[in-house]
Amino acid sequence: MDDEAPAGPDQPAALDVLTMGRIGVDVYPLQVGRSLREVETFGKYLGGSATNVAVAAARYGRRSAVITRTGADPFGEFLRDALRRFGVDDRYVTAVEGMPTPVTFCEIFPPDDFPLYFYRFPTAPDLQIRAEELDLDAIRRAAVFWVTGTGLSQEPSRSATLAALRARGRAGITVLDLDYRPMFWASRELAGRRIAEALQYVSVAVGNLEECETAVGVREPRAAAAALHDHGVDLAVVKQGPAGVLASDRSREVEVPPVPVDVVNGLGAGDAFGGALCHGLLAGWDLQHTMRFCNAAGALVASRLACADAMPDAAEVEQILGAAASDRPV
Amino acid sequence: MDDEAPAGPDQPAALDVLTMGRIGVDVYPLQVGRSLREVETFGKYLGGSATNVAVAAARYGRRSAVITRTGADPFGEFLRDALRRFGVDDRYVTAVEGMPTPVTFCEIFPPDDFPLYFYRFPTAPDLQIRAEELDLDAIRRAAVFWVTGTGLSQEPSRSATLAALRARGRAGITVLDLDYRPMFWASRELAGRRIAEALQYVSVAVGNLEECETAVGVREPRAAAAALHDHGVDLAVVKQGPAGVLASDRSREVEVPPVPVDVVNGLGAGDAFGGALCHGLLAGWDLQHTMRFCNAAGALVASRLACADAMPDAAEVEQILGAAASDRPV
Repeated sequence: MDDEAPAGPDQPAALDVLTMGRIGVDVYPLQVGRSLREVETFGKYLGGSATNVAVAAARYGRRSAVITRTGADPFGEFLRDALRRFGVDDRYVTAVEGMPTPVTFCEIFPPDDFPLYFYRFPTAPDLQIRAEELDLDAIRRAAVFWVTGTGLSQEPSRSATLAALRARGRAGITVLDLDYRPMFWASRELAGRRIAEALQYVSVAVGNLEECETAVGVREPRAAAAALHDHGVDLAVVKQGPAGVLASDRSREVEVPPVPVDVVNGLGAGDAFGGALCHGLLAGWDLQHTMRFCNAAGALVASRLACADAMPDAAEVEQILGAAASDRPV
Repeated sequence: MDDEAPAGPDQPAALDVLTMGRIGVDVYPLQVGRSLREVETFGKYLGGSATNVAVAAARYGRRSAVITRTGADPFGEFLRDALRRFGVDDRYVTAVEGMPTPVTFCEIFPPDDFPLYFYRFPTAPDLQIRAEELDLDAIRRAAVFWVTGTGLSQEPSRSATLAALRARGRAGITVLDLDYRPMFWASRELAGRRIAEALQYVSVAVGNLEECETAVGVREPRAAAAALHDHGVDLAVVKQGPAGVLASDRSREVEVPPVPVDVVNGLGAGDAFGGALCHGLLAGWDLQHTMRFCNAAGALVASRLACADAMPDAAEVEQILGAAASDRPV
């Protein structure tokens, strides 16, 4: 990203993918299947949903950046180092004085239990993103702009997120990750109201059944997609876990089954799906292929211990897709 | 501690050492000399000053316990496990719902730079100790009762600490660790006022030059000891770092030099000193021997990577004292 090609005499090239939201240090056990009561050693990793999506997109060669904030501390420096190492532009990552960079611990109980322990209360640097500090021009020009439900959970981040969405005016591909984490909200009802408000500004919404129910009040996948369309969304992506993914772009609906893998750590799989979604939408693939690719990317990360560090490149995803296809009866 | 000898028909045996204050998980780098920006892996350890003093005392065979609180989470369970493993009675350790067990990261730059990164803001479970939940009888009967400046930094912990001190009425050995950590206080002036207030209830005060200056306004060791006596303290212990330790019990004053060691991690050395101080005072040793023993215990822990896990037993301390003595010209 050092030698970026100028798009005009004074203008830097537009970003392919610009995300906005959470960042932190994931302090994850080096022993799988043990509680934090018993685990002995930890590794440290770049983390945070919006950040992981930018990393995942960069792995496909997309020019990506994340708008976020860290503490003014060594962990914040680590996060910037890691972003650069992953090829993510860190120009929109700023430090907040007097607030520690958040850390998150987890427990890894495959195949389906991955509790998270967030140290980001009562607030976190990435919730201190301010509207007046945004580069609205870069936000308008990015091919994909990606925001998350967590970014709506507190001020000033919520106002900044809405200001960014308004500046885009639903141009290009504007995605809301419905991302609902109960511990960041006073109530599920409030989360639902805030997330639903933001839907009018986006063209794409993606979430699991729980998140769809929080945002639009219905959990049945087709009804959830329809409700998301009613809120103004062009493409609704409903992740159904073991039942696969449903995607609907008003003109058609596709449903793809999950890619079977041995799950090691489910954390990060949703962000891998998100990065792949950005890639597929930018590539202009048909909806079926895009969803299969997203599913496979998510499955690959679920089969690996790490999150950001585990994001696959395109060849790895195509390989697992090929293997999955050849497993099926012909 | 499972089969404690009853002191009377209905009364459990009195504790030798009962401390009250901070507990948490120390998440410490497994690589020395690297910043958190660069360190790759971490171990987890029992930590918190008051807790470490109870552990250090237990290593000398003292019946010890700590009054503190954790989160209601797996890290809280780990801390209780660790206390029991070290032979510290955990009956006065309770869990606070909805508040995470604090974690503390550090950087280890020997010989003298060990920055701490606390994740315990705006409050922590151990600052939620409530006066009405205290076992005042156990507090009165303990041979040594030990509180810290940090315990005075917030309510309800401050009121609980003062209630405990009042219940003791300066009986036996009642110690205030002047323990001043700027990040836990709105101002140094406030810390000084709160810590000075508590001095009237204790018979022993221990602190370094910075802490003495915070509590009584003077930094020169003899003047600090005199000021501590003026506040009602019988034994004043002033830690002067490379200049050794000054102790004054009104009737006499002793000054002992530091024990030379290769410092690996200075964190925990003060708590090792504290545990040794409890042991020496309980043993009734003369002041000179007590201070030499405390100094040696602190030096031993400074020469080791861990804190609670590194607390020495009496034989180890005597060995280093013997070695230090034989180094001197005869």
